[in-house]
Amino acid sequence: MRKLKYHVAMSLDGFIAREDDSVDDFPANLSPEHVTDYLYSLASEYDTVLMGRGTYEFGLNVGVTDPYPSFETYVFSRSLQESPDPRVHLVREDVVGFVRELKTRPGKQTDMSRVIRAAQMGLPKDIYLAGGGLLATTLLDAGLIDEVIIKVNPVLFGSGKALVPRLARKADLELLSTKVYRNGVVLLQYAVKR
Amino acid sequence: MRKLKYHVAMSLDGFIAREDDSVDDFPANLSPEHVTDYLYSLASEYDTVLMGRGTYEFGLNVGVTDPYPSFETYVFSRSLQESPDPRVHLVREDVVGFVRELKTRPGKQTDMSRVIRAAQMGLPKDIYLAGGGLLATTLLDAGLIDEVIIKVNPVLFGSGKALVPRLARKADLELLSTKVYRNGVVLLQYAVKR
Repeated sequence: MRKLKYHVAMSLDGFIAREDDSVDDFPANLSPEHVTDYLYSLASEYDTVLMGRGTYEFGLNVGVTDPYPSFETYVFSRSLQESPDPRVHLVREDVVGFVRELKTRPGKQTDMSRVIRAAQMGLPKDIYLAGGGLLATTLLDAGLIDEVIIKVNPVLFGSGKALVPRLARKADLELLSTKVYRNGVVLLQYAVKR
Repeated sequence: MRKLKYHVAMSLDGFIAREDDSVDDFPANLSPEHVTDYLYSLASEYDTVLMGRGTYEFGLNVGVTDPYPSFETYVFSRSLQESPDPRVHLVREDVVGFVRELKTRPGKQTDMSRVIRAAQMGLPKDIYLAGGGLLATTLLDAGLIDEVIIKVNPVLFGSGKALVPRLARKADLELLSTKVYRNGVVLLQYAVKR
């Protein structure tokens, strides 16, 4: 089964955005070193992206109706009536059932075979959960998130949108990898323990 | 001037304790590798410890009136009437003024000279801010915290006592060092930018 990975930038004190959903205060977003890594990771790891309404509307407010044009895109909302873009699928109910089924669908094959002949069989691409926190909480409580990948930015917000607000119970993690960027961002990759 | 360092364990999502101030869910607290490092750091870096009432009372509730017997100890509270221990100093008002003055006092010398002759002059020991978040917020907003040292534990709480609740404005940090422990704890050391 494909993995669902919650992959977001965060302030050191656990916020993935300011109260208004802006993320301008994350230096990670401005560093070429970081952006290169992030785009490579997106292109090689995922073929599908999930996001909550707040995360989607942050792009929509600046005119972006299809933020990830190379991915199958699903926006979860009870209040939106229809999708503003034919490529963007709106899921209005049964979030958990929908994502559980989505994980069983075969992912696209990675194109690593262009680089490494031994990898010609490819690996199924995974599902990228881009935010927000409420959607992540629902999916984590339902046992559907496999990895949590956090870009810890060197900043304290003190308030904002939490990583996983109102989680029903604590979730134990296993540290898989770390990477330190020159701009002070620390990438932490965890598996969610079952 | 001596440094004030906010040095705490935290869940990945930014909580330094559960709602009841307990910290039992931090695996860091159970790992010999980690405890050794932590005790060495305490002994070599600090001679003074500051804490809020909630943090102090968590120990008090299990009968510990003097949690750091080798340090000068200050507890900040408006509601406590007197200190339960003659070694523990209660500060009831003007937190900011008190800490500002405390930082100007000379710290004890480190005893590194026993190990390295060139360090015979020693270095002044710093001030350890052990929690909680409200005291840290007050002191950070007043520009008095020099470093933030976080032991990121591989766990998501979803709620609890925040690292710096209700900060007046965001605080930019500079990453100074990182260390990864075998138990999945990641130590992140930052300087607070002025």
